[in-house]
Amino acid sequence: MSRADEGLPFLLRYENVAHYRDGQVWILDRRVYPAREEYVRCGDYHEVAQAITDMVTQSGGPWLAAALGMVSAARGVRNLPASRAREELERAADVLGRARPTTSQGMRAHILRILNIASDAIEKGDDVEEAVHAYVMKSLEKRYRYSRVMAEYAVGLLPDDVTILTQCYAETLIGFVLLVCQEKGKKISLICPETRPYLQGARLTASVAHDMGIPVTVITDNMPAYILSKGMAQVFISAADVITLDGFVVNKVGTFQIALAAHYHRVPCYVLGTPSVNNPDVTTVEIEERDSDEVVHAMGVPTAKAGVKGYYPAFDITPPELITAVVTPKGIFAPGDVKKYFMSAP
Amino acid sequence: MSRADEGLPFLLRYENVAHYRDGQVWILDRRVYPAREEYVRCGDYHEVAQAITDMVTQSGGPWLAAALGMVSAARGVRNLPASRAREELERAADVLGRARPTTSQGMRAHILRILNIASDAIEKGDDVEEAVHAYVMKSLEKRYRYSRVMAEYAVGLLPDDVTILTQCYAETLIGFVLLVCQEKGKKISLICPETRPYLQGARLTASVAHDMGIPVTVITDNMPAYILSKGMAQVFISAADVITLDGFVVNKVGTFQIALAAHYHRVPCYVLGTPSVNNPDVTTVEIEERDSDEVVHAMGVPTAKAGVKGYYPAFDITPPELITAVVTPKGIFAPGDVKKYFMSAP
Repeated sequence: MSRADEGLPFLLRYENVAHYRDGQVWILDRRVYPAREEYVRCGDYHEVAQAITDMVTQSGGPWLAAALGMVSAARGVRNLPASRAREELERAADVLGRARPTTSQGMRAHILRILNIASDAIEKGDDVEEAVHAYVMKSLEKRYRYSRVMAEYAVGLLPDDVTILTQCYAETLIGFVLLVCQEKGKKISLICPETRPYLQGARLTASVAHDMGIPVTVITDNMPAYILSKGMAQVFISAADVITLDGFVVNKVGTFQIALAAHYHRVPCYVLGTPSVNNPDVTTVEIEERDSDEVVHAMGVPTAKAGVKGYYPAFDITPPELITAVVTPKGIFAPGDVKKYFMSAP
Repeated sequence: MSRADEGLPFLLRYENVAHYRDGQVWILDRRVYPAREEYVRCGDYHEVAQAITDMVTQSGGPWLAAALGMVSAARGVRNLPASRAREELERAADVLGRARPTTSQGMRAHILRILNIASDAIEKGDDVEEAVHAYVMKSLEKRYRYSRVMAEYAVGLLPDDVTILTQCYAETLIGFVLLVCQEKGKKISLICPETRPYLQGARLTASVAHDMGIPVTVITDNMPAYILSKGMAQVFISAADVITLDGFVVNKVGTFQIALAAHYHRVPCYVLGTPSVNNPDVTTVEIEERDSDEVVHAMGVPTAKAGVKGYYPAFDITPPELITAVVTPKGIFAPGDVKKYFMSAP
């Protein structure tokens, strides 16, 4: 059976997101890509959590990095008595789960499943590092397969000749959307808002499309409404950091105003992701505020006079009324119906 | 009588926008301010036009720079026969008037008035350089006084404790709004979107507020909708490069999507400016597309992989339905009523 990342470009191949070797987790430093291709080496789970907090990786990246942090933690407890080993792994799960506040619910749920695998291995006397690593790689494979399924549903909604407007770096989801479009012979091109302050759109999403040979245009974050008013994109596609069960979409700051502009111009807005069982409604969402210094720097260069402050909410919240459809691994839902996801057959 | 720029900070004082000396026009280089305080020296009107095209100055800056370019041209024709002098000045007017396409209607009208002054001086045998310079300085003084009048009308619309969201660098208009707020004892603060790709919000508007001692926060261009959703600003105030007589506002790209977000959150959107008699309707507006390379650079550093293209429309168009009021030197108009500006007493 072929690997689920087959056909995807450099940035989206498993080992280039993050990989594990002998207790160490190597994470591609997305803060400097594509100017430099560098990996941050994390010697233990604390360093993995710090790398996630520092946004060495983002979007789906922390999901894999944190899981590999658990593998590293599992290696560290191999020679401990079972109860001490469990304690230490619980500590690791807690530290890794709290690395980014907004996505912490989903991250904790993922890490708790890893913790159960580790507990089972400890109980059975299996090699806990090996058991956890095998589980993480299986989950990763499944995650990619689910991404492809979502992309296939999404591509089914697109015309044969389409320019997609996206936001930030939707990782495997946008990668598979582009790949499936290519496979189906659709004529596609992509417009990426640059996504300040970290410029994930310009640096990451545009690189993925460029590496796949798909025409891509970068715009600044103040241009989506103009682009849509000129009919230059026929659909807005984004991923989500959280989809609450009452249909709100939490995603990189800027998603909300693009969705507003799309709605105004009657351009469909499709959000790809799995509803978060841990976020029953929008009141459970905490918007992470990051170091405001990033906002008054661009590519490391100060943009404002010394003493001028920035403000950096990392995410925003798009209400269901602006979203045309939520595309999940189980099919397409109206945003008001995402609760039904958990009643659907897989 | 005091000068109309009294009380305004560094960036807004006449001589720091652009000044004329012995045939040369010195323009503050807004592309590098506040990192560096440098003036571009233009030896003739061609160099002034090029500086305007290159965005050495922007917002209201080209209005003064082009006028001073006409002074320089006037100096150059002092010893020519009247008909040759007129020809040469017409050529200068044409070159300067075409330096930026979107604002060319208003710019040409302004330059034509200067051309008439020059013609009169030539006919009367007056010193044409002196006559044109005197007229330009008188117009500048009047422009600043009109800006203050608009600001006073606008401030009358504001609550006593207010955070203003603005866009790009609205030059004297935002400067006087802040100054008049201070004079009236209002408690104000300002939020500036950074305004990529040139970052006029972060570099210029934030500097003006900071120099005036007004609390100012820079955000990236993807944050206005979030800011408004959190009630962090109670009004959106922008200037306009063009206000068409059917009530559309042409301004720095991004204005449209902020106005959309303001409208969605029922936050008033006030646009300050003079309706353009030369733009009877929105179809007369040409949106300037600038060098797309700027979009894939930030502060001079490349942001995207080599080969990835950008797209750079410099302006966008906000429809009247999103604008609460247009604030002019003759008072406050509904956007649908701006035609009446020309029927009002001065």
